[in-house]
Amino acid sequence: MRELWLVGIGTGNPDHLTRAGARALCDAALILVPRKGPEKSDLADLRLAILDAVGATAPVAEFDMPVRDAGYDYAERVSRWHDDIAAIWAETVSKAGVSGPVALLVWGDPGLYDSTLRIADRLTPRPRLRVVPGITALQALTAAHAIPFNSVNGAVTVTTGRRLRDHGWPGEAETVVVMLDGECSFRGLDPGGVTIWWGAFLGMANEVLEAGPLAEAGPRIVEVRAAARDAHGWIMDTYMMRRDPS
Amino acid sequence: MRELWLVGIGTGNPDHLTRAGARALCDAALILVPRKGPEKSDLADLRLAILDAVGATAPVAEFDMPVRDAGYDYAERVSRWHDDIAAIWAETVSKAGVSGPVALLVWGDPGLYDSTLRIADRLTPRPRLRVVPGITALQALTAAHAIPFNSVNGAVTVTTGRRLRDHGWPGEAETVVVMLDGECSFRGLDPGGVTIWWGAFLGMANEVLEAGPLAEAGPRIVEVRAAARDAHGWIMDTYMMRRDPS
Repeated sequence: MRELWLVGIGTGNPDHLTRAGARALCDAALILVPRKGPEKSDLADLRLAILDAVGATAPVAEFDMPVRDAGYDYAERVSRWHDDIAAIWAETVSKAGVSGPVALLVWGDPGLYDSTLRIADRLTPRPRLRVVPGITALQALTAAHAIPFNSVNGAVTVTTGRRLRDHGWPGEAETVVVMLDGECSFRGLDPGGVTIWWGAFLGMANEVLEAGPLAEAGPRIVEVRAAARDAHGWIMDTYMMRRDPS
Repeated sequence: MRELWLVGIGTGNPDHLTRAGARALCDAALILVPRKGPEKSDLADLRLAILDAVGATAPVAEFDMPVRDAGYDYAERVSRWHDDIAAIWAETVSKAGVSGPVALLVWGDPGLYDSTLRIADRLTPRPRLRVVPGITALQALTAAHAIPFNSVNGAVTVTTGRRLRDHGWPGEAETVVVMLDGECSFRGLDPGGVTIWWGAFLGMANEVLEAGPLAEAGPRIVEVRAAARDAHGWIMDTYMMRRDPS
């Protein structure tokens, strides 16, 4: 694998793909797609629908995601998991017996809360990397609600559900965007004076949106999220919170 | 103007446009494009090149951006300027005498450090708004450098040059992305233990990149930026800084 293209594909709607992303998928010699188990087969299907929408004709090599080791602290567990994924990529590409650029479809943008760049760094020899940016969940969220990400001259903190649970509201932040939160971690916050905008399946036909003061919208989001997750077997969601001007 | 589409077009490369964005530009009945004076005619040309690349055929209505009033504080000055822009949009569309959706091309993403949504809120009657997300400068930056936006489970603060000058490094932040900085405001920081990744004309043929420890890369960026700005008459740039692990 001499050249690896990490192609941001947005949040599931083929129309999120950029012209550069569509061209990369059509020009690649091989396309790597993870299988994530039956409950996530919707996601594999979405990837194939995206390839179909842009007319990509390269062979698709599927690989099984490894299981995370237990028994290590968080950082070590993630690090070992990334090693395992890199080894599986290399093996899958080698078995495919194709020469030329390999493309990997990445949800959202390869730079934003995604491990693909870190996994690629573990490949030896390291292939030439090309990153094609894609629409992220936070952009799909602000677009769907037609709201600005930031206040005038304001700062925004982008953080994770885990950090929100461990550290609470980040310092003096006015606006907080939360990624990778499978646990509705906003429930641990004092909801006073905070507005939340939430969305799942953003940009897709089954998009669900909720917004309002955290005190009343928070519990509603917990319910709506659980129902949407039950209905689909999986969920991809994100949210933004802003302190009301005092 | 019953319907206004705010279409994120990325940072100047027509290949940043998404499939949804391209379709919106082709389906619009009228396309609003600001004239910003002769020194920025490159930018107007870029917009027209993007319309050409996607085969948009709707009439293009150009308007002159108003001058900002002096003599008010920052917030009031911005607010009055937004009022003036909204009035000019309404007048320009009215003069064009076209019915149907009006599209406005927005650099980057309409939600991220852009005033278009706030200006649209001042239109009376308020048109139905549709926001089409676009690739932002911060995504073009991390893609060009092939680096992740965040560390594993890390938070990122997105802020402005003005805030960086007024308040310094934001609190406990590990990673800081700076938007709207025309003054290389990183010069006011203690550069010790900080790495910077900078880029101008991101995603375009004349892209310029610099990176390294802030102490040595900072002065280099100031020089390279000034030279690039002189050569083109304008510049669009952004940067990210990360504290080295201690």
